[in-house]
Amino acid sequence: MPRGEFEFIHHIRRRAAVRPPVRVGIGDDAAVLDHPAGTVEVVTTDLLMEGIDFLWPETSAALIGRKSLAVNLSDLAAMAGRPTAAFVSLALPKARGRSFADEVMDGLLALADAYEVTIAGGDTNSWDGPLVVSVTVLGTPFANQPVLRSGAQPGDWVFVTGACGGSILGRHLTFTPRLAEAERLTQLVKLHAMIDISDGLAADLHHLLDESHVGARVEAAAIPIHADAARLCDPRTPLDHALSDGEDFELLFTVPANDGPRLLAAWDQPTQITKIGEITAESGCRLHRADGTSIELPPLGWLHAMED
Amino acid sequence: MPRGEFEFIHHIRRRAAVRPPVRVGIGDDAAVLDHPAGTVEVVTTDLLMEGIDFLWPETSAALIGRKSLAVNLSDLAAMAGRPTAAFVSLALPKARGRSFADEVMDGLLALADAYEVTIAGGDTNSWDGPLVVSVTVLGTPFANQPVLRSGAQPGDWVFVTGACGGSILGRHLTFTPRLAEAERLTQLVKLHAMIDISDGLAADLHHLLDESHVGARVEAAAIPIHADAARLCDPRTPLDHALSDGEDFELLFTVPANDGPRLLAAWDQPTQITKIGEITAESGCRLHRADGTSIELPPLGWLHAMED
Repeated sequence: MPRGEFEFIHHIRRRAAVRPPVRVGIGDDAAVLDHPAGTVEVVTTDLLMEGIDFLWPETSAALIGRKSLAVNLSDLAAMAGRPTAAFVSLALPKARGRSFADEVMDGLLALADAYEVTIAGGDTNSWDGPLVVSVTVLGTPFANQPVLRSGAQPGDWVFVTGACGGSILGRHLTFTPRLAEAERLTQLVKLHAMIDISDGLAADLHHLLDESHVGARVEAAAIPIHADAARLCDPRTPLDHALSDGEDFELLFTVPANDGPRLLAAWDQPTQITKIGEITAESGCRLHRADGTSIELPPLGWLHAMED
Repeated sequence: MPRGEFEFIHHIRRRAAVRPPVRVGIGDDAAVLDHPAGTVEVVTTDLLMEGIDFLWPETSAALIGRKSLAVNLSDLAAMAGRPTAAFVSLALPKARGRSFADEVMDGLLALADAYEVTIAGGDTNSWDGPLVVSVTVLGTPFANQPVLRSGAQPGDWVFVTGACGGSILGRHLTFTPRLAEAERLTQLVKLHAMIDISDGLAADLHHLLDESHVGARVEAAAIPIHADAARLCDPRTPLDHALSDGEDFELLFTVPANDGPRLLAAWDQPTQITKIGEITAESGCRLHRADGTSIELPPLGWLHAMED
């Protein structure tokens, strides 16, 4: 996220009064609302713009539609929430006609059906501009209470699902929102904090640490690096790709140290989970290397740290 | 709404399976969700695009921001629902900088504060394209159950709040969402059906009749015509403007015939309410004129009917 947008959001966050039924407003993967009788709701929204978030026709209309919903489902997973209803608004380029609009919705509806999410409303418009898709998703926590970014505690083990880096080779469009993994995690352990990896492993870890007012110690050798990260032909190392690339849409989460070994023993899902470090009381994020040296891991990842 | 978009929405509506907790999906002013313990939620969303829904700088950034939220609050009013939380996504033109973004949000936040609506989340982006604002609003019915478009019954009296026509002279931007009126109505009578006037009195009446599978008889002389409708200098009559213009954001609603006179007697709000006709079992919408003649009132309004 560009610095200007980050500051703008912080400005709105400071100005926007949080009133009931809203419990958690701007600043997490989703908002949290408290309804009567202890019912908790989580709500997230994303706006995808042609030329910024995707290119067309490089990316098919169906994959664009799929991704518009999938990024929101990933946010729900990061709250440990089950998505229930989605609202889809479209700014459609007139020149591409009805078949283009149908393809976008076909991609989106196929994913909605797979996760039993109802497309409950929206707003359709056309213009001479590029495609814009805005999706809002509502859901309910798997275990009654959502998991926030702000709950990490010193001593927690830090885990990540799957493997990171090189998503640009295709996974940024075809990724599976980690909803099944999030639900299983809520059954097995007490999740202290969770976020999905959209900005990059290092950047999103920093978001989680900032909101929790803690730091972390991360083992470089433990980072699960996706095979795609090594397939990219550029001067950056696979580890740097894994730390910096973004759009992995994996889950980054912390559990109490006591629960860590038990989680590793009990984990029975096809998606791997990997312990990559531990939460520390001191702020900052320290990356420890196999040779015994360590560096401060800034939000933008390792390469930038090496250049300092 | 252009015919192509109307057909596209019907296509999505047919395809989109409605699953719990969604009770009412696409097709009303807002969706209705049933949560545990009888808690009912209403959700609506609108996408406003520069060059289509507003012009800049002809319309100030603050008024654009205000309208983006206000149209959603009007939808909530049409469901007889109190808005609680809003989600605001922006595609910001880079060249206009931070001050433009601040002005949009200032206009939006001022209205949110006035109605005690929490801005609970959103998504901010910038690009070289025009301004796009997507707003989703959540709320709860004033009287536990929302009022749908589909509940009108033969014999019902048809009412409208305020006066219609000529909103283009300014009210399309500065209108007051009829939330106070909706709440008072729920206290005084049994509302059978309600919709807000965005497409035009005739068009939105047809939407209500279609969803309720009924018709209506409307008295031309009873239509409350706004002074702005007469200020427009064109060949169309003020009545035609009142029937066709759209963006009045008044409420059009029906109540049982028994409740009609009681409502008129008990009404104590500054905004007028006017009986404009009655619901009929026969489909179609008949406009009766003072001279005793009558014509079929098509969705696009009177002028088009006269040209037939």
